[in-house]
Amino acid sequence: MPERFITQRRVEFCETDAAGIVHFSSLFCYMEQAEHAFLRSLGSSVMQKLEGGWQLGWPRVRAECDYLGRIQFEDILEIQLSIPRLGRTSSTYQFDFFSPAVKLVARGVLIAVCCRIHPATAVVEPVPIPDELRVRMSPYLCDI
Amino acid sequence: MPERFITQRRVEFCETDAAGIVHFSSLFCYMEQAEHAFLRSLGSSVMQKLEGGWQLGWPRVRAECDYLGRIQFEDILEIQLSIPRLGRTSSTYQFDFFSPAVKLVARGVLIAVCCRIHPATAVVEPVPIPDELRVRMSPYLCDI
Amino acid sequence: MPERFITQRRVEFCETDAAGIVHFSSLFCYMEQAEHAFLRSLGSSVMQKLEGGWQLGWPRVRAECDYLGRIQFEDILEIQLSIPRLGRTSSTYQFDFFSPAVKLVARGVLIAVCCRIHPATAVVEPVPIPDELRVRMSPYLCDI
Amino acid sequence: MPERFITQRRVEFCETDAAGIVHFSSLFCYMEQAEHAFLRSLGSSVMQKLEGGWQLGWPRVRAECDYLGRIQFEDILEIQLSIPRLGRTSSTYQFDFFSPAVKLVARGVLIAVCCRIHPATAVVEPVPIPDELRVRMSPYLCDI
Repeated sequence: MPERFITQRRVEFCETDAAGIVHFSSLFCYMEQAEHAFLRSLGSSVMQKLEGGWQLGWPRVRAECDYLGRIQFEDILEIQLSIPRLGRTSSTYQFDFFSPAVKLVARGVLIAVCCRIHPATAVVEPVPIPDELRVRMSPYLCDI
Repeated sequence: MPERFITQRRVEFCETDAAGIVHFSSLFCYMEQAEHAFLRSLGSSVMQKLEGGWQLGWPRVRAECDYLGRIQFEDILEIQLSIPRLGRTSSTYQFDFFSPAVKLVARGVLIAVCCRIHPATAVVEPVPIPDELRVRMSPYLCDI
Repeated sequence: MPERFITQRRVEFCETDAAGIVHFSSLFCYMEQAEHAFLRSLGSSVMQKLEGGWQLGWPRVRAECDYLGRIQFEDILEIQLSIPRLGRTSSTYQFDFFSPAVKLVARGVLIAVCCRIHPATAVVEPVPIPDELRVRMSPYLCDI
Repeated sequence: MPERFITQRRVEFCETDAAGIVHFSSLFCYMEQAEHAFLRSLGSSVMQKLEGGWQLGWPRVRAECDYLGRIQFEDILEIQLSIPRLGRTSSTYQFDFFSPAVKLVARGVLIAVCCRIHPATAVVEPVPIPDELRVRMSPYLCDI
C-alpha cells in the first residue's frame, strides 16, 4: 500500500476573492507548498545548488485541478500528496484536498521535470532524478 | 471558421518567482482575466446582480495548463480565447498564450459553470446560460 | 512589560520574485496573517457575523513596512506582534520580522478600524471595539 | 509645475478578497507596476544588465499606503506617479489612486534604492542613480 505525505494549510484572507471563497488559483500555490514540504521531508529542496553555478530545479510542464466543494476563509485543509508516476526525469504529483468536514473538496495534479538550470545564461536542461532522491520518493508511488 | 477573442497581458514583476520566470500559478490569473475581458466584450460580466439578492456567477469546476516555453518579466503575451465546448450550464474555455516571438508558450483550459449565487446564504445553483449570452458566445465555439 | 504575540511564517516560492528574494508586497500578507492568528488566539476572528446580516470586520486605513534585510525562499520568519495604540474604534499593530539569524529584517504597521459591514448594501460603519475583545487586546499594548 | 506620470489599472478578480473589495496588499503591486511603466516610459527598466554579471535594480527600503475609499472589482483606477524626493541613490515615489468617480481612494509611497546586484553571489550595493536617468526623472520631482 503506497504512502501518502500529509500536510495542512489554512486558507488565508488574501487567498479569497469577492465571491467569498478561496480563489481557484490559490490551490496551485497550495500544491506547490505541499510539494516543497514533501521534498524537505525527504531531505531535499526544490532548489539545490550544484557545481559550476548550476542549480537543480523542478520546472512544471503541466498543472491541473478539479474543484469539488466549497473552500473558504480559515478552513484548514488536509492535503494528501501521492505520486501516480515517476519517470526518468519527471515526477507526477497528485494532491487530494480534504475540508475540515473530511470531504474531498479538490484534486490537483502537478507534473514537474528535474532540470539543471544555469541562472546566468537561462539554460534549462532535463536531467535524471538523482538516484538517492528517487529511492526516497518511491514509497509514495501509487498505481492508478 | 470560429472566432478567437484576443487580448494582451504584460508579465508583471510580482508575478515572477526566484527561478527568474513567471510563477506557474500566474497563468491561471491571466486566463481568468482574459475570460472576464471576453465577457465584458460581449456586454456581460463575470458577476451580475439578479433579483432578490441573487447574483449570476461562474464558479470553476476545472482548470489546467500546459507549459511549453519560457515566460519572463515584461514579456507581453498574446492570449487567444476560444470555446471548445458550450454546454447547457457550462462553458469550456481554451487559452493559447503566445510569446513576443509569436511562439506558443502555454495552453490552458478553464471550465466554468453558470450559477445563481446567494451570497448571504452561500447557496450556489447551476442555471442554464442565459440565451442572449449564449448567442453572443457561439461564434467562438470551435470543434476540436 | 507588554506582551508580544509571536508566530512563524515560512517564505513560500510563489511569494518570491525574479530578484531572488521575497516580493516586498508579501510582507503585507504576512502581517495580515499574523493579525488574524492573533485575533484567533484571543477567541475572536477578523470576520464575525452579527445580527441582521451585518458582519464585524477590520478594514485597513493604513499599512507601511520598512525593509531592513534580505528575506529569501524557505526562510522561517519569526513575527512579533504588538499594539502601539488602541483607539476607540481602531487598532494599530506593529510587526517585527526576525530572520533565522535572529536579525530584524523588516518592521511593519497596520492600522485597522473595527467596522460593522453590511455585505448586501456595501455599508461600512466604524463601531467601538467590543469591550470583551479590548480587554483581551490590552496586554499587548506597548508604549513607544 | 511638476509633471505626473499617469497610468490606469483595472482591478482584477484575483486581487479582491472575501470582504468584496480589493485586497489591501494589491495596491502595492499596482504601485510597482506604475513605477515600472514609468521607468519604461523613460527608456529604462527596473532590471538592467550591467557588465560582469551585475544587474542594476531597485530594491525597496520602505512602502506605505493610506486607504481613503472603497475600491472594488472591475474599477478602473487612474494612478498618478510623482517624485517627492530624488536622492543620490534613492527615489521616493508617490502614487495617487483615483476611482472612476474621480475621487482620491488611496495614496501610497515607495522608496527604492538604485543598486548593483550580483545574482550569483547575492551581493547588493547602492550606487548613484545614473545621470542620464536622473535627468529624465527630474521633471516629475515635486516639492511637498
